[in-house]
Amino acid sequence: MVRIVRFHETGGPEVLRLEQVAERDPGPSEVRIRVEAIGLNRAEVMLREGVYHERPVLPSRIGYEAAGVVDALGKGVTSVKQGERVATVPSFALSQTQQGVYGESAVVPAEVAVPYPASLSPIQGAAIWMQYLTAYGALVHYGGLGPDDVALITAASSSVGIAAIQIAKQRGATVIATTRHSAKRAALLDIGADHVVATEEEGLAARVMEITDGGGARIVLDPIAGPMLTVLCGAAAPHGTIFEYGALHPGETAYPLMPMLAKSLTITGYQMLDFVLDPARFGAAREYIFAGLNSGALTPVIDRTFALEQIVDAHRHMESNTQCGKIVVTV
Amino acid sequence: MVRIVRFHETGGPEVLRLEQVAERDPGPSEVRIRVEAIGLNRAEVMLREGVYHERPVLPSRIGYEAAGVVDALGKGVTSVKQGERVATVPSFALSQTQQGVYGESAVVPAEVAVPYPASLSPIQGAAIWMQYLTAYGALVHYGGLGPDDVALITAASSSVGIAAIQIAKQRGATVIATTRHSAKRAALLDIGADHVVATEEEGLAARVMEITDGGGARIVLDPIAGPMLTVLCGAAAPHGTIFEYGALHPGETAYPLMPMLAKSLTITGYQMLDFVLDPARFGAAREYIFAGLNSGALTPVIDRTFALEQIVDAHRHMESNTQCGKIVVTV
Repeated sequence: MVRIVRFHETGGPEVLRLEQVAERDPGPSEVRIRVEAIGLNRAEVMLREGVYHERPVLPSRIGYEAAGVVDALGKGVTSVKQGERVATVPSFALSQTQQGVYGESAVVPAEVAVPYPASLSPIQGAAIWMQYLTAYGALVHYGGLGPDDVALITAASSSVGIAAIQIAKQRGATVIATTRHSAKRAALLDIGADHVVATEEEGLAARVMEITDGGGARIVLDPIAGPMLTVLCGAAAPHGTIFEYGALHPGETAYPLMPMLAKSLTITGYQMLDFVLDPARFGAAREYIFAGLNSGALTPVIDRTFALEQIVDAHRHMESNTQCGKIVVTV
Repeated sequence: MVRIVRFHETGGPEVLRLEQVAERDPGPSEVRIRVEAIGLNRAEVMLREGVYHERPVLPSRIGYEAAGVVDALGKGVTSVKQGERVATVPSFALSQTQQGVYGESAVVPAEVAVPYPASLSPIQGAAIWMQYLTAYGALVHYGGLGPDDVALITAASSSVGIAAIQIAKQRGATVIATTRHSAKRAALLDIGADHVVATEEEGLAARVMEITDGGGARIVLDPIAGPMLTVLCGAAAPHGTIFEYGALHPGETAYPLMPMLAKSLTITGYQMLDFVLDPARFGAAREYIFAGLNSGALTPVIDRTFALEQIVDAHRHMESNTQCGKIVVTV
């Protein structure tokens, strides 16, 4: 028997339960991982609430991102070896509700179990893929960010936000980071942001225009949408691109047609899955990310760790929006 | 004295008046044109209604696009000669309210007066720039449309829509054209559309998916927005791009965040001005358009002509949405 996090009804953090279940054996093309650390993501909050595109089958497992040691190989698996340390890459190849990785043991498709640099701890290993793939894809692959660019990173204290700051700085761009209140200002400057705008204390568009001498930000990376999107159009440079990679705002988003026409702006719905499902793209992304991790240009920032028994508190903390960096559960 | 169309208050077509005013002389860097034909555009309806980004100064002139003969050169003008046939390129360099071209004579910045192929009549000359620059920029320059692509052209019976069908076919793409009712179906097939969808009689997204075996349209060109935008997301291919070049829908447009995330779609606010304000781009666009006009691949489709005295009727006709092609006023 192993301890696995499951939920029997959708709802708040309190629906998560740590339960004893029989350990599974990996099927063909699967691997079993002895989990050492679990990285928390918004996708899990959404699954738990029943609002994710994958509907939970109750009782439902949960979790996309874990680091651990391969302890059993299914038939035909040659990509990893028993005893190898791997981290799971969030992917639609993995069904959260069936194969969710919150627990002591996880059986996942072999393709999502990827070895990570030996210099990283398991806690750091659980904080690589979602954040760096998301930021890399938008900023580097699609955005072609370079030294002459200004990048505007919203929700910058999230794990993706911090990863985006690190990648944008690594590319030599000027980085403007947003956070709601100035409490996180010092931390974001420390991480490398050139400028921090506290959006509930300052006018974002006006501040960005002031910082950029009226030029605006060529690339914007935003997971919020909602009324913020119109503000971001105000902060964007003519012909700029706004990457929307989430839908954190709960209500409707108005489409800012007039600002988009006036400045010839582009809005792209962006998913890191673009860099998971295509082997060539994933290879290039992994190479970029590992080079950065090895050089130190990219360093996962861990907000706080929780024990597996504290999974409810860990989810509560994620929803508090007080964190700065990745929340990791250790096993 | 010359007869010029002006309006003394904003409002419906009836506010347009044909008035005798003193003929102007061109100032430095301006040319005067004896107007032969005027191409009508939505931008003029918007100016007349007082909802265009340029506010009318009353009494206001009106009009962007005319073909005529250069009859006076301002100081320093070398780009055109007296007696040369030119067509005006819609551009923010031209103030509609000050320099509007509806009338027997127009004084415009020399840069917007561009000679057009001698094989075209003045009526056709007044139906080149807005439509072909708009379609070229989105489909060819930004969209890179090619033989493997499916292009979805909405409001296809508009002058831009027809220009887009012609350009997309010239590029070898499969063209799906939309119109509200099937009354215009035959005309659009005649112009070159491979498929026509009557959006008030058929489900657009379902029909596009049926036509494309579930693939969807990689490029969508749409001037409407509004609730249509969500439908267009349903008709688009994964990683497709929707170019929004107008705002014909009067109400709010909801931003289709979830469909955009699900299919990694891009929406770009697009203006043909991108191809007017940059000389290198304009040169490339002009070369492409003139080659098409000379080969016959591009042929302006004229819906109907009106005499200058019928300017009110001409605007009423434009707002009737019964036209198929460019509405031109002859002088």
